[in-house]
Amino acid sequence: MENQLLSDRNVDFLLYEVLGAERLCELAAFREHGRETFDLFLASARRMARQVLMPSYRRMDAQAPELRDGRVRVHPLMKEIYPQLLSLGLINATRPAAVGGQQMPLTVASLAAAYLMAGNGSAYGFLGLTSAAAHLMEAFGSDWLKTEFMTRLYAGEWTGTMALTEPHAGSSLADVTTRATPTEGGYYLIQGAKIFISGADHDLTENVVQMTLARIDGAPPGIKGISLFAIPNRRHEAGHLVPNDVHVAGAVHKLGSRGIPSLILSFGEEGDCRGWLVGERERGIAHMFQMMNEARIMVGMGGVATASVAYHEALAYARTRPQGRAAAARDPQKPQVAIVEHADVRRMLLRQKAIVEGGLSLLATTALQADLAAHAEDAPSRRRAALLLDLLTPVAKSFPAEWGFESNVLAMQVHGGYGYTSEYLPEAWLRDQKLNSIHEGTTGIQGLDLLGRKAVAEGGAALGILQEEIALAAKRAKAAGIDQAWCDGLGEAMTTLMELTQHLGAKGLAGDVEGMLLHSADYLALVSIVTVAWQWLLQAAVAREALNSGRAPTDFYQGKLGAAQYWLLTELPRAKLFAELCRSGEDSYARMKSDWF
Amino acid sequence: MENQLLSDRNVDFLLYEVLGAERLCELAAFREHGRETFDLFLASARRMARQVLMPSYRRMDAQAPELRDGRVRVHPLMKEIYPQLLSLGLINATRPAAVGGQQMPLTVASLAAAYLMAGNGSAYGFLGLTSAAAHLMEAFGSDWLKTEFMTRLYAGEWTGTMALTEPHAGSSLADVTTRATPTEGGYYLIQGAKIFISGADHDLTENVVQMTLARIDGAPPGIKGISLFAIPNRRHEAGHLVPNDVHVAGAVHKLGSRGIPSLILSFGEEGDCRGWLVGERERGIAHMFQMMNEARIMVGMGGVATASVAYHEALAYARTRPQGRAAAARDPQKPQVAIVEHADVRRMLLRQKAIVEGGLSLLATTALQADLAAHAEDAPSRRRAALLLDLLTPVAKSFPAEWGFESNVLAMQVHGGYGYTSEYLPEAWLRDQKLNSIHEGTTGIQGLDLLGRKAVAEGGAALGILQEEIALAAKRAKAAGIDQAWCDGLGEAMTTLMELTQHLGAKGLAGDVEGMLLHSADYLALVSIVTVAWQWLLQAAVAREALNSGRAPTDFYQGKLGAAQYWLLTELPRAKLFAELCRSGEDSYARMKSDWF
Repeated sequence: MENQLLSDRNVDFLLYEVLGAERLCELAAFREHGRETFDLFLASARRMARQVLMPSYRRMDAQAPELRDGRVRVHPLMKEIYPQLLSLGLINATRPAAVGGQQMPLTVASLAAAYLMAGNGSAYGFLGLTSAAAHLMEAFGSDWLKTEFMTRLYAGEWTGTMALTEPHAGSSLADVTTRATPTEGGYYLIQGAKIFISGADHDLTENVVQMTLARIDGAPPGIKGISLFAIPNRRHEAGHLVPNDVHVAGAVHKLGSRGIPSLILSFGEEGDCRGWLVGERERGIAHMFQMMNEARIMVGMGGVATASVAYHEALAYARTRPQGRAAAARDPQKPQVAIVEHADVRRMLLRQKAIVEGGLSLLATTALQADLAAHAEDAPSRRRAALLLDLLTPVAKSFPAEWGFESNVLAMQVHGGYGYTSEYLPEAWLRDQKLNSIHEGTTGIQGLDLLGRKAVAEGGAALGILQEEIALAAKRAKAAGIDQAWCDGLGEAMTTLMELTQHLGAKGLAGDVEGMLLHSADYLALVSIVTVAWQWLLQAAVAREALNSGRAPTDFYQGKLGAAQYWLLTELPRAKLFAELCRSGEDSYARMKSDWF
Repeated sequence: MENQLLSDRNVDFLLYEVLGAERLCELAAFREHGRETFDLFLASARRMARQVLMPSYRRMDAQAPELRDGRVRVHPLMKEIYPQLLSLGLINATRPAAVGGQQMPLTVASLAAAYLMAGNGSAYGFLGLTSAAAHLMEAFGSDWLKTEFMTRLYAGEWTGTMALTEPHAGSSLADVTTRATPTEGGYYLIQGAKIFISGADHDLTENVVQMTLARIDGAPPGIKGISLFAIPNRRHEAGHLVPNDVHVAGAVHKLGSRGIPSLILSFGEEGDCRGWLVGERERGIAHMFQMMNEARIMVGMGGVATASVAYHEALAYARTRPQGRAAAARDPQKPQVAIVEHADVRRMLLRQKAIVEGGLSLLATTALQADLAAHAEDAPSRRRAALLLDLLTPVAKSFPAEWGFESNVLAMQVHGGYGYTSEYLPEAWLRDQKLNSIHEGTTGIQGLDLLGRKAVAEGGAALGILQEEIALAAKRAKAAGIDQAWCDGLGEAMTTLMELTQHLGAKGLAGDVEGMLLHSADYLALVSIVTVAWQWLLQAAVAREALNSGRAPTDFYQGKLGAAQYWLLTELPRAKLFAELCRSGEDSYARMKSDWF
């Protein structure tokens, strides 16, 4: 049976039974839309993902793009895929008609993208990066930049990248040293090097535009001195594209995500690399971060998608692979049973389901907040959504990377010895998933962002909103007849989280920033478990309501209750341990010295 | 700086300060040995691992053995390595002089092997498998079998394998269908297929002997009907080696551990595959399992070694890679600091250290029990050691596979974007490590073995011994001045484990075997955390004693206290959660039906 990538039934459940996505169409921004347009959009993505992307996945994984004579050649299949992908109109799906878009809610567009990423994440990558680059230009670019770059990017005529990382600086953007020297011609001369730039060169389109962080001559050191530039690989001169002194200095060989090249770029080796300032001078980081929520949501969605496709593969395998017999009845004369009959295999599958569907729910909820933050009718609603969006984003980015990776490991484990071989697919998705804890801000960076900024911003306002949402979900769950203990468990964890955050915030205000942030990894784990528990309590409430109403078939809803129970009784109790570590400030690694290791 | 693979200082600490390995030489079996012979043996393994194996690792990973015309060609480097490895005398190092061995304690030999496995696990694999095959023959083979096979295997003239798994049966050995038909000639005609047979063919030696499970015609179904056979790829006829109708039907392409081939074998396609019965008819599983402890210890040691080499790589990287600044002092004009200065990086390193050195201590302790079970002077001592050995083996096998994998993930994470590329080594060790949760009994199988057999055998006698050992360690720790809370935490966890095991055992005795075993995965995690906590408390006691005595340098011992604190305060608290799941019988996945997923 064909791998479904994501469960359509579950996506529909999330959109229409849990999130009530049709209500978005009451907002002016989405007035043109309705469930029909949502479903059409999703249907075309599903079809493309299953019929075009997934069948190409393994071959693109096995044969990574080649770097020859300084130019990158993608896999031949990618050349067939790219125009088909463009036809979905994904690059600017969420953008307004003024720039050729459909103003599709991100809630819907990100779920559509999830199918594509589950089918072939690298193939989707070319579009995702282009979308982000164009969006930066739309938000901050001059008219000329929009005409020259944005329009072509949104059309997929050229593609875009995010060129932040430098070899010596890694996560430390304050240490970016790429230089931009102003000229009379309205452009800057760029000199520097970038590394790990996905899709920075290829032969799919005639040009690539690198959205690059650089420092204008004389700018202050650190984050404050960084500006954002558009640097095309080729530039227009007299109506023709000519080389812009952007060179591919090398390719890195990645463990996974192998369909899209990761490149080392060198700007200005010949002193003639031209870049155009995007937005304000020395506001590069701010501009970039304004787009960061969306980029991180898409990375998180990719992580969920990668866990999802593996989960579905493992589930199909477990249902059809005969092996062994029940522990209580080991008659070797009886035929073997499908391994899904073994409790420990069901444990591995249920954990995957809880991670995948809990993660998808978290991601869709985060995307919904992004839609509301941008388009809710009144300012208080937009502010509320924006606060919640900011809080949820580091979790939405890192939960799939960490728990999703564990889910991918389990999908492999369900396959036994076969899972360890490239004759089966789970090992490839495991390799792909690993990237997500590293790029677009490592998990460590997400933890610092969450605790150091998001949780304590505006006096902890965002956590207050989360607490309200959890209380609402608990009320609904109780009314539907969900076990009181499930609701109480989550309520207590949320209270613990609030108190802990006040405690840590006070520590930071008192000047002990290191102490406040010491257990940021544990804090991130705590918030991740609690927010996913919120999603599961909500899903359980909806499922119970459906069962109460006698709606059939019941299997789907029973499965939801099973996974909710699993998360709330098995994973949520860990929240207390993480909170205790944060509160006590357990100091083993604080005290360790380099020479003690 | 060259990767040390394992810390010599730590290995010496374990052997001589923690385990008192010299005391083994008071036993008759090890009378010929002393610290000098142990150290010489270790020194030659260390040298070989660092100078020969490690330098060949990446190239062997990058170019797996080739299957051409039904024959396997190993990497050219392996042909250079193999004779050098043989010169160490590892294959029969632990065996008596009567079979050419040195009667080295497994405690020492397994640590020597750890260096080799850390340097190049696949290269070592050829020897490890050969050792296990020959040991089976030594224990159960006839004189003819010993002359024909064992002697050549111990000499490394031929190599051996373990051929258990069949394509349709996987972990379910009861379903082995390979057939053995008796003949007049003293041999059996074999027909069947095996899969995932490591090293089953190669061009290092002129022959390979497959230790194979098969069913003699007319044998009962299930485990009871299985016998053990030696099946050489080529057999002697009139003084010449001729083909024995053993065919390589294919190779599987593994995610890691790529230096040694994993093959699909077909026996008797031409009706002339001869196998020789090893030991008694229909006692094949019992014979195989008698060797299983040692095989599983070696897999566990390999897991620790694979985590160790990656940890040392990450540590060296963290000490030399500059990036960012302290959270409290972000002056961009100041130079960047080495990433080991960041608390979250030290967290990742300390977790690795706790897993690697806690795991190594657990493995060495388990090997010591194996030595005592075989060679202690009096029967009660041997029995005590055998019980503890049986209990610890599934933990020693699975802890490195599960926590060690996590450690490998962290080693990659410390390397940031570089860690995701094959320009650096951590990704390769991550791939290698993944095998260990699957082969030689999956982690799920280890959990069932631990709870269903080992923990409840003889009225839970083994756990009683573990409790005694933990009490001794706690007493020593308290006397040395270790924080009372560390000792109490472990004591309480052990009490919880005892009570839980009684509870679950009673459930099983009452006929609810499924209920008893439902949370065997959580039970395994619980016992793993507790036994490693025991190892850390013991190491902390020894370290504290050394510091009390004023022994210098102190860095090493301070590091031990740091890692012990980390494990006892950060990981041990999880034990309670796992125990609660086991006790409550949380039933989410028990109740899930296949159609609910």
